[in-house]
Amino acid sequence: MSDPDDPHANISQEKISVDQKDPFSVTPWEVEGQVDYDKLIDKFGTSEITSSILDSFKTITGEIHPLLSLEYFYSHRDLDWILEKYRHGERFYLYTGRGPSGMIHMGHIMPWLFSKYLQEKFNSKLIFQLTDDEKFLFNQNLSKEKINYFTRENILDIIATGFDPKKTKILVDSKHIQHLYSIAIEIARHITFSTAKAVFGFSNSSNIGMIGFPPIQASPCFLPSIIEKAPTPVLIPAAIDQDPYWRVTRDVATKMGYYKPAQIHSKFVPGLGVSGKMSSSRPETALFTTDTPELIDKKVLSAFTGGQATVQLQRKLGGNPDVCPVFWYLRYFFDTGEESEERFLKCKIGNLLCGECKADLSNHSKTFITDFQKRREKAKDSVDEFIYTGDSF
Amino acid sequence: MSDPDDPHANISQEKISVDQKDPFSVTPWEVEGQVDYDKLIDKFGTSEITSSILDSFKTITGEIHPLLSLEYFYSHRDLDWILEKYRHGERFYLYTGRGPSGMIHMGHIMPWLFSKYLQEKFNSKLIFQLTDDEKFLFNQNLSKEKINYFTRENILDIIATGFDPKKTKILVDSKHIQHLYSIAIEIARHITFSTAKAVFGFSNSSNIGMIGFPPIQASPCFLPSIIEKAPTPVLIPAAIDQDPYWRVTRDVATKMGYYKPAQIHSKFVPGLGVSGKMSSSRPETALFTTDTPELIDKKVLSAFTGGQATVQLQRKLGGNPDVCPVFWYLRYFFDTGEESEERFLKCKIGNLLCGECKADLSNHSKTFITDFQKRREKAKDSVDEFIYTGDSF
Repeated sequence: MSDPDDPHANISQEKISVDQKDPFSVTPWEVEGQVDYDKLIDKFGTSEITSSILDSFKTITGEIHPLLSLEYFYSHRDLDWILEKYRHGERFYLYTGRGPSGMIHMGHIMPWLFSKYLQEKFNSKLIFQLTDDEKFLFNQNLSKEKINYFTRENILDIIATGFDPKKTKILVDSKHIQHLYSIAIEIARHITFSTAKAVFGFSNSSNIGMIGFPPIQASPCFLPSIIEKAPTPVLIPAAIDQDPYWRVTRDVATKMGYYKPAQIHSKFVPGLGVSGKMSSSRPETALFTTDTPELIDKKVLSAFTGGQATVQLQRKLGGNPDVCPVFWYLRYFFDTGEESEERFLKCKIGNLLCGECKADLSNHSKTFITDFQKRREKAKDSVDEFIYTGDSF
Repeated sequence: MSDPDDPHANISQEKISVDQKDPFSVTPWEVEGQVDYDKLIDKFGTSEITSSILDSFKTITGEIHPLLSLEYFYSHRDLDWILEKYRHGERFYLYTGRGPSGMIHMGHIMPWLFSKYLQEKFNSKLIFQLTDDEKFLFNQNLSKEKINYFTRENILDIIATGFDPKKTKILVDSKHIQHLYSIAIEIARHITFSTAKAVFGFSNSSNIGMIGFPPIQASPCFLPSIIEKAPTPVLIPAAIDQDPYWRVTRDVATKMGYYKPAQIHSKFVPGLGVSGKMSSSRPETALFTTDTPELIDKKVLSAFTGGQATVQLQRKLGGNPDVCPVFWYLRYFFDTGEESEERFLKCKIGNLLCGECKADLSNHSKTFITDFQKRREKAKDSVDEFIYTGDSF
């Protein structure tokens, strides 16, 4: 899994999914500009999550999760199909991942929390892949030692997220390659360089490990069918920038006799800066799970907002919550729907100052992260329980 | 390791090593036309084995092996260097391999016998790689089941060759990938698609597994340094068509802090047909280790020779041993130097009939293969002993 943060990825970006004149670009290795999420659905050829899909969720789980109603998860492939399968008694696996090129921030945690929710509600087994090989291949400046360090640290965050240890297995590519390789070469045999070039933007200067990598990320889509010894549906909750991987994997799936993996795509969590997603490459705009309360206070205090330049102007003109990362951060993570609507309106009419929202965000974040850190500390004792062994789940 | 026999390999051959006007082409996947071995040295940029290198062999081993004096092994990279290292007390590993796309014939066995000889004389540890993944990736028509079958069968032949079980480990890529992958991605990071395209002739229609494969074949070059926890010289005895792999590997070696692997290159064993090397794709011209005595008789009887159309003409004009596969087969495998010279002269002056040479070849081959088959049967009990385990040698 790629971290689109990575500014060093030496892939030649042909911005294949987005026209030259478009003001944004999204690939598995880079997110640039102000993303138009609706346009991205068209460009990638995915589908939006319709009200009928939300109804299916409600029928099955009795509720609609805020990250669905807030349209943080907003796009999909075959989500309707996999819910229908489920209603007819066919359970699905969840599969998600992480490229261990840095420490974990709240932007990473959000889709994980949703995956955890899906695991609970659908009683799903989850495969969590750490693509340490990808990070090494796509970043000439990152050493194996550093990646190994991030891998160990990231595993603690995954466990601290609260996944069910009986139903969750963590795969580290370089450690578990023997469980993936045989599937990967079968996938690879079906993908020409032409296709890979068009989908991922590889060029003459790409190293051959980068070109050979996509099947490694595709392999866990078919692992459940091998583990269960029967065709097994798989749902991938991940940010929409990862879609190119699944597009290629879906084409290959039928040729190999497997179900196409279904996806549910999220938007990006905004960073605390002027624009753009939360990113490890701009640590001052991201809240990490290892940050101290003091550092959280400091980062939130320096956050960009949609407020006016002075208290007086704010009172007079009102703020602009739409472009305010503090607003969105609170909305996605901590506010209830009602609280968020109220915050929106009060800001608009100048009845709320940025300092107040920042104080809310700081307090909520400190509580969440302090709590998370306790679980993260405890996670050190249960790493073995989560690591994939291959013989059973 | 590639079997240049393979007519199905779907690689786009740009015949990069040989000019368009040249009447032959040699790549790791294809050997075409009448090979000019001297020209190949120029084209590949390797060195011929000089008399001073033969002297070094003699100083160390007390003799010059017939396959050296007959110039079957005729080209090298850094062979002088590795012999010098040896003379100064630095032992080297041997590394060779096999692409398991068919059964084993005498053309495969010959370099193995030489490797066994080197192992004995230089007290070398040997890594024998079976590139089952390569065979799967480069041949869309070959199933995993078939490759697994050939892998199991080929392992029996390797063991029957007589390598020292204490000093020989067999690696099967798909089974031992966890011991290679970490080295492979480090190699891959140093090779751009440009380079791979130029050296191996990859194109847009190559599948991405083919493009990602070369580092897997390069990895065992560096495994000895990892096993021994110190830079360790490696000598690769193999047919010259495999040179492109080592050319790339040598470039990468210094960047990764390893010795460049040295090579000793062989020519090809001729098939029993009109021209060309012994090849599994023309089984009637190849003597397999599993052939029955009757089949050997039949194949040798049908062999092409350098003889005249009739006995009378042969007696009158003499034959042409230079183009006679029966002559070369006897020379490489069974005749002593003296016997071969005598056979050459007697044929030239019409004093030897093709039937006599064929009888010699049949008898020698039947004895050799019958004997080999006994060892091959016994080999079934010692497979485990030879399989690489990774923790020690």
